[in-house]
Amino acid sequence: MKKTLEELKALGTQCRGDILKMTYVANSGHPGGSMSSIDILLSLYSFANVFPEDPWNEDRDRIVVSHGHISPGVYSTLAAYGFVNREEVISGFRHPASIFEGHITRGIPGVEWTTGNLGQGLSAGVGFALAAKYKKKDYHVYVVMSDGESAKGQVQEARRTAKKYHLDNLTVIVDYNDIQISGHARDIMYVDIKAEFEAAGWKTIEINGHNYEQILSALRIARNDGYPTAIIAHTIIGKGVSFMEDKPDYHGKALSKDELDKALNELGIENDVEKYIAMRKTLEVKPHEKVKLYYKVDVNLGAPRVYDKSTDNRSALGRAIADLAIANDNVVAVDCDLKGSVKLDFLDKERPDRIVEIGVQEHNAAALAGAMSADGIVTFFADFGVFGVDETFNQHRLNAINNTNLKVVVTHCGIDVGEDGKTHHALNYIGAPLAWYGFKVIVPADPNQTDRVVRYIAKEYGNFVVAVGRSKLEPIRKEDGSLFFDENYVFEYGKMDILRDGTDGVIYATGSVIPNVLKAHEILKSKGINFAVINVSCPYDLDEEVLRKYSNFVVTVEDHNVLNGLGSLIAQEYFEMRMMPSKFIKLGLSEFPVSGDSKFLFEIYGLSGEKIAEKIMEKLCCK
Amino acid sequence: MKKTLEELKALGTQCRGDILKMTYVANSGHPGGSMSSIDILLSLYSFANVFPEDPWNEDRDRIVVSHGHISPGVYSTLAAYGFVNREEVISGFRHPASIFEGHITRGIPGVEWTTGNLGQGLSAGVGFALAAKYKKKDYHVYVVMSDGESAKGQVQEARRTAKKYHLDNLTVIVDYNDIQISGHARDIMYVDIKAEFEAAGWKTIEINGHNYEQILSALRIARNDGYPTAIIAHTIIGKGVSFMEDKPDYHGKALSKDELDKALNELGIENDVEKYIAMRKTLEVKPHEKVKLYYKVDVNLGAPRVYDKSTDNRSALGRAIADLAIANDNVVAVDCDLKGSVKLDFLDKERPDRIVEIGVQEHNAAALAGAMSADGIVTFFADFGVFGVDETFNQHRLNAINNTNLKVVVTHCGIDVGEDGKTHHALNYIGAPLAWYGFKVIVPADPNQTDRVVRYIAKEYGNFVVAVGRSKLEPIRKEDGSLFFDENYVFEYGKMDILRDGTDGVIYATGSVIPNVLKAHEILKSKGINFAVINVSCPYDLDEEVLRKYSNFVVTVEDHNVLNGLGSLIAQEYFEMRMMPSKFIKLGLSEFPVSGDSKFLFEIYGLSGEKIAEKIMEKLCCK
Repeated sequence: MKKTLEELKALGTQCRGDILKMTYVANSGHPGGSMSSIDILLSLYSFANVFPEDPWNEDRDRIVVSHGHISPGVYSTLAAYGFVNREEVISGFRHPASIFEGHITRGIPGVEWTTGNLGQGLSAGVGFALAAKYKKKDYHVYVVMSDGESAKGQVQEARRTAKKYHLDNLTVIVDYNDIQISGHARDIMYVDIKAEFEAAGWKTIEINGHNYEQILSALRIARNDGYPTAIIAHTIIGKGVSFMEDKPDYHGKALSKDELDKALNELGIENDVEKYIAMRKTLEVKPHEKVKLYYKVDVNLGAPRVYDKSTDNRSALGRAIADLAIANDNVVAVDCDLKGSVKLDFLDKERPDRIVEIGVQEHNAAALAGAMSADGIVTFFADFGVFGVDETFNQHRLNAINNTNLKVVVTHCGIDVGEDGKTHHALNYIGAPLAWYGFKVIVPADPNQTDRVVRYIAKEYGNFVVAVGRSKLEPIRKEDGSLFFDENYVFEYGKMDILRDGTDGVIYATGSVIPNVLKAHEILKSKGINFAVINVSCPYDLDEEVLRKYSNFVVTVEDHNVLNGLGSLIAQEYFEMRMMPSKFIKLGLSEFPVSGDSKFLFEIYGLSGEKIAEKIMEKLCCK
Repeated sequence: MKKTLEELKALGTQCRGDILKMTYVANSGHPGGSMSSIDILLSLYSFANVFPEDPWNEDRDRIVVSHGHISPGVYSTLAAYGFVNREEVISGFRHPASIFEGHITRGIPGVEWTTGNLGQGLSAGVGFALAAKYKKKDYHVYVVMSDGESAKGQVQEARRTAKKYHLDNLTVIVDYNDIQISGHARDIMYVDIKAEFEAAGWKTIEINGHNYEQILSALRIARNDGYPTAIIAHTIIGKGVSFMEDKPDYHGKALSKDELDKALNELGIENDVEKYIAMRKTLEVKPHEKVKLYYKVDVNLGAPRVYDKSTDNRSALGRAIADLAIANDNVVAVDCDLKGSVKLDFLDKERPDRIVEIGVQEHNAAALAGAMSADGIVTFFADFGVFGVDETFNQHRLNAINNTNLKVVVTHCGIDVGEDGKTHHALNYIGAPLAWYGFKVIVPADPNQTDRVVRYIAKEYGNFVVAVGRSKLEPIRKEDGSLFFDENYVFEYGKMDILRDGTDGVIYATGSVIPNVLKAHEILKSKGINFAVINVSCPYDLDEEVLRKYSNFVVTVEDHNVLNGLGSLIAQEYFEMRMMPSKFIKLGLSEFPVSGDSKFLFEIYGLSGEKIAEKIMEKLCCK
């Protein structure tokens, strides 16, 4: 696929025409940046080891285009090199029947990562480069990005990570056209891109981004210089069509008919858009089939650990991750300077090389963990709930869009955190991931269930959140004193655990409050009131049969925001099932809690055993 | 309050003792970093214009401590200078009855901003410094922060913003102790703090952070040098107690009894902790009263604009913001390089100085907007929904914790965005803010309601999200053709608008789908089926009376994630009201949508007028 300079030049003209045509046909899209990036893209896809006829070849170089709105540039390049069909691109661009969406989408041959939200692509590139190191593969990773998005803080986080991990297999090419939506980049924000790369320990090379010779030469140097290297390519937006050059107006707008005629004429290209417009009309209005990119997950799950005495769930979690990462070369954990707290220290003691330590850079950590997980590494992203869910909300939404295989394991959930207070009380570990279609949430009840859950998610391709608290918990026992989740227990996604039976009502509960709920059960029992206690570890997939069976007086208890958690999901499920329990109480947090010992906090916010029992008895008396 | 060097030295010893005592009494907290920061804090509170007897004096310097876990250091300093009572601090630290929470909390005299999630404080400082400029006040803003949190990308975003806006009224002091939770900062992540400040155009000064003379001298230089300046103060964690110095272990752990004796002995301080332990026992286990910090909102709302022809809600929004910002000196808008799209261009044309342009740096933008809004500026944070809600989820959670007065106005919500595709379809503008206690969400139905909503939120102290789509919409009309929201319309929070009456059922809808729902109403009517259509612009505060009246066959329609939006809230409300409509249909998005013209997308995802009517008729026939 190596092209001569002459061939590149010809393709540069052809692709510029294609960019203008497809945005005209779609009547939307981003021609300006596509034309400033196109010479970079053509040179890069020519230079890199990529295989149109075998696009997912494991040894291919990974190319991430971070400014995903230049999809016309990317699609026209992919068409020029035979990854995709050129007519389908031009006619189908941005049509719901086509895979050629407004922003580039993972799964299109030649596209490694869905981008569009700016400043996230370099983190993905770092993830792919780390995955290569873990897999002992020598492919190279390229990230093409824009100057405007270089303002995003996450970019600096990613740069430093590349330096720390000596990612000599990573090259960035910045399309520096000095234009962003609102005008000249230099006027929008003060960003010294070169100085910032250098402050992060990178090598930089400055070139003319429309000179193929310079681009290819820089790519050659960067590939072999032993450093992560940034090629800063000075370009002109709209390059190639005189009236579009250096004009912010053409950032995100298709040309008019007259403008198109004029532009194609200047490029020496025939205006054949009517053909594509006619083809577009034949496309059916329906969503295209989703591209699925899975890898076979091959993980030795080892023997489960059985906990017979008081243990925090996070230790069970950390211990199980260590077991898996020690037994399997393809299991890695990502940490954000909380090793000791999230209990990655078990792994750290035995195999520190299996922890990627990112420091206080959660956005970058979440995004690179997603990319690693999509590229063959079973990746655990361990963090406090407030960082691993709330702070990285959109990074996980983008991971979900990218169909990754990420295991988000968050500790310090709920007021069980205690004294660290409201900034650290994670209260949305059930509610927030509803935004990340496809993510499953599991809240294990005790250390034994935690152990089994961690092993379960390791072998299932897909995204999971596993949320645990902070405190030590007694393993849950049956009424005869034996372990509820014993050595024979196998975790089954979506199964509810009937911890105690009862006919006067039911308490559905999840997570750290289970011991309190069991206490409430005892208090009620001592007064002759028998409530079933049901552990709901999978709040997104409720068991209708159980809900139907236990449905007279329903109580939900959660160490979670009461507005968007278990209680809310159970209420909705009953409503959808057209069932109306005789009584309903929903207990959880409805404000930012204060700081304090978690036992005090459970008391204050009505989640202690006594308070739960009290609420139930009140409701029993007074209707 | 200016102290001599001798006095500072004595206070340094006293405060070190207090830090060790309060963490011992609470049996938790962060002594190590408190002791590395304490000499900086004491010097700063001595040097700055702050007033213990009048802590909220409008002309005070603002001091933000970004690494909020060093609360023992801050509280002991505040006690030393008479802002708070020393005995209450030592006995009450981290107790739920006390205001002295685990992380410093806005509203404690001398504390300007609640911090705890690292790397966010500098953005708040930038917000305060910008507020000073808008208010033409010459107070200075100080941000004390740690080296570990300097890795956070948002910090670099904030630095560049300070440079761009020439914030010579801003000084940072970095407590550079080279220790973070997991070990030495230099091993955790490659961060060249000095080089990065300089790459962002700051002046830097390096000093010994335990030398009062050097600290005071640097503060003097920084206040008057005409630049944003960073004082990089080299310190030692645990400084002052030999066995604690330079040990990561003491980052987040109280001393044992023996260690405390030894440490206090070394400091030459009497061990009187028993007294405080006894005091602590008398504290009642209840949440303390919330500190309320409001300012009087004085805004001239001007005359509403009436739209009689097709207009996009975002233009109505941008036009109303421009009206307000032009008529009022205390109204400012924050933009993230989307002026033209979020329609701040109306304001930009007439008063560009009233727009703070942050570029592609959403985290910083959201946080600084929150701080500005808390400090006397009615602040509109304008962005696309995916950035202004999803990407900045945690920044707004922290704004909510800080009880700000922020107006988050997001455009491009829903699949109404169309061709930009799934990365740009904001689907959680109702669901996500449920995590930000106190935030109210308003989804206006047409340009007229949008205009009135923007004026309404400007005058109400508090946090709001106003979410609108992208497309042009016909103003909603009554059946007689007159405007539904006419010149006499006054927006009332929590009121539902009965757009059409009907007795066969009801469609509750919100936002961009209203025209489709009105079309469905017409289709059904043409078949003799009469459905009421109700606009729910305030999905968090539903009107029970209306719900009760229209409750036979209930349909909800939203251009939003169906798992966490209007349908989910309405289902829960009926369930809590113990009402079970005869039929229920919930329409919305249940997967990441594809790219395409929004009319096509509404069709594909069942939200067009025809599809809605079809679904209702199906359900009517077949039970």
